[in-house]
Amino acid sequence: MTFPFDIALVWLDLTGIFFFAVSGSLLAARKQFDLIGSLLLASLVSLGGGVIRDIILNSGPPAAFTNPAYLAPPLLATVLVYFLFSSVQRFTSLLVLFDAAGLALFCITGTLKALAFGMNPVAAVVLGVTTAVGGGLLRDITANEVPQLFDASDLYALPAFSGAVLTTTLWGLGAFNAVSACAVATVVFVFRVVAWRRSWRIPLA
Amino acid sequence: MTFPFDIALVWLDLTGIFFFAVSGSLLAARKQFDLIGSLLLASLVSLGGGVIRDIILNSGPPAAFTNPAYLAPPLLATVLVYFLFSSVQRFTSLLVLFDAAGLALFCITGTLKALAFGMNPVAAVVLGVTTAVGGGLLRDITANEVPQLFDASDLYALPAFSGAVLTTTLWGLGAFNAVSACAVATVVFVFRVVAWRRSWRIPLA
Amino acid sequence: MTFPFDIALVWLDLTGIFFFAVSGSLLAARKQFDLIGSLLLASLVSLGGGVIRDIILNSGPPAAFTNPAYLAPPLLATVLVYFLFSSVQRFTSLLVLFDAAGLALFCITGTLKALAFGMNPVAAVVLGVTTAVGGGLLRDITANEVPQLFDASDLYALPAFSGAVLTTTLWGLGAFNAVSACAVATVVFVFRVVAWRRSWRIPLA
Repeated sequence: MTFPFDIALVWLDLTGIFFFAVSGSLLAARKQFDLIGSLLLASLVSLGGGVIRDIILNSGPPAAFTNPAYLAPPLLATVLVYFLFSSVQRFTSLLVLFDAAGLALFCITGTLKALAFGMNPVAAVVLGVTTAVGGGLLRDITANEVPQLFDASDLYALPAFSGAVLTTTLWGLGAFNAVSACAVATVVFVFRVVAWRRSWRIPLA
Repeated sequence: MTFPFDIALVWLDLTGIFFFAVSGSLLAARKQFDLIGSLLLASLVSLGGGVIRDIILNSGPPAAFTNPAYLAPPLLATVLVYFLFSSVQRFTSLLVLFDAAGLALFCITGTLKALAFGMNPVAAVVLGVTTAVGGGLLRDITANEVPQLFDASDLYALPAFSGAVLTTTLWGLGAFNAVSACAVATVVFVFRVVAWRRSWRIPLA
Repeated sequence: MTFPFDIALVWLDLTGIFFFAVSGSLLAARKQFDLIGSLLLASLVSLGGGVIRDIILNSGPPAAFTNPAYLAPPLLATVLVYFLFSSVQRFTSLLVLFDAAGLALFCITGTLKALAFGMNPVAAVVLGVTTAVGGGLLRDITANEVPQLFDASDLYALPAFSGAVLTTTLWGLGAFNAVSACAVATVVFVFRVVAWRRSWRIPLA
C-alpha cells in the first residue's frame, strides 16, 4: 500500500505543480516578461511552495532539486502559454482557475507529507496551508504585485485551510484514499472559485 | 539549571512573538486587509524570524511548526487588534513600540539559541540580528512597504546589533541571567524608541 | 588535490561575494539608504544566493553564518562605495559590471558545490542558476525594484544557465580545472555584458 500511495502523491504533486506553473506563465505574459522570465516565474510559483515545505520538514534536498521530473511542468506550462496565449480571451478567469486547481492539490499534498513525517495534526494543517499559499505569495512578491493572499475582496487562505483540515481529519479517521482525496480537492476548488465569483468576504482586521 | 533556562527562553520567545504579531496585525488593519490576512501577516512577522533562524541552524523542523503554542500569540494579536483598533489613536507610535519590544526580545533569543548550538561569537551576533530584523523585513516586503530596516531617517538594525553583542559578551563572561537579560532588553528597547523619537541618523551610503 | 580545490573554491566564492556586495552597496547609495542599510543590502545580495544553496543542499549551517571571513567582502564593499561613490560617474554601468562578475563566479561555485554533494547534473545546473540569480533577486525584491532577472530588454538568467551547463559538462569530462574555470567565468561575464550593451532579447512570453 505504501508504494502506490507514494506514486499517487508524486502524481498529485506534479499535477498541482503544472496548474500553478500555468498561473505563473500567464502572469509573466501579462507583465510582458520574456520566455525565460516566464519559465523562472512558473518555476518559482510551482516549485516554491514545495521547496519551502521540504526545507521546513528538514528532509534533505527538496524533491524539486533532486528529481528532474519536477522541472517538466514549468517547461510545459511556459511553452503552452507561449503558443496559446494570443487566443486566450478571459485571461484573469483562467489565471484564477489554474491557481485554484494548484491550491486544491497543494493543500492536500503539503498536509499529507507533513503527516507522513510524523508531525502533529495542528502542524500538518499549518504546513499544508503554507505549502498551498507559499508559491503564490512568492509569485506575487517577485512580480511586484499586491499578493492575492491579502486581497480583502477575495478568500484565498480559507479554502486552503479547509482542505488541510479535511485532509488531516480523514487521515486521522483512516478514511483518506483516492476517492476522498478527489472529494477534498473538489471542495477546495469549488469553494475558492465560488468565493471569487461571488466576492465572498470576511470582516476587515 | 538547563531546564529553567530552556523554559525561560521559550517564554521570552513567545513574548517577543506576541509583540511582533501585534505590529503585523496593526499594519494589516492600516492596509485594510481582512481578518485572515491580519492573522497571516501577524504569523509571518512574528514567526518568520525564528523560522529563518531555525532553518539556518539546521536544527530540525522549526519550533513554530512543531509546537502549537507558537500559534497562540498571532491568534491573540489578531483578535486584540480587531476589537481594540477602532479606539487606537496614536497608531504609528503603537506599531513602533510593539515592533521595538519584539526586536529587543528577538535579538536576545536569536543570539542565545545560536550560542547554545555552539556557534562562534561572530556567527551568534549575525544570527541574532538576522532573527530580530528578519520577521519585520518579511512583513514589510509582503505588505509592499519600503522596509523599515532601510529607512535612513531611522535606526533599526543598530539597536538589534547592540543587543546581540551585549548578549554574546555577557554569555562569554558567564554573566548572562534573568536580570542581565532584562537589562539588555531594556537597553535595546530604549535605544530603538529614542532613536525613532529623536530621528537619530547615521551617514548615507 | 582535494585540499587545494576546496581552498580555490572558497576564494572563488569570496571574490564572487565581493563583486555582488559592491552591486548591493551601489544600489543602496542610489536609493539613499544609510551606511547600515548599505551593509545589510550588500550582505543580502552577496550572501543570499549561497545561503539559499546551502539550505537546499541541507548541508548544515551555511558557510556565511559559520565562517566570519564571509562577512569581510560586504564590509569592504560598503566602505569602498562610501568613499569612492562621489567620484563615480558611470554608475549604472558599474553596477551591471560588478553584478555580471558576481554572476559569472556564482554560477560556477553553485554548480560545483552541488556536484561535490553528489547531485545529478540537471539538479546541479538548476542549483547553480539558483545560486547565481538568487542574491540579485533578493536585492531587487528588498529594495522594491522590479527584479533585473525579469527585465525583458536584457538577458540575465541565460548567461548563468550557460555557465552552469559548461561547468557541469567540464566536470563530467574530468576537464574542470583552474584554467577552464577562468574560461567559463570569462564566457559568462562577456555574454552578460555584451547582451546588456547590445540589448539582446528573446521572445516575450
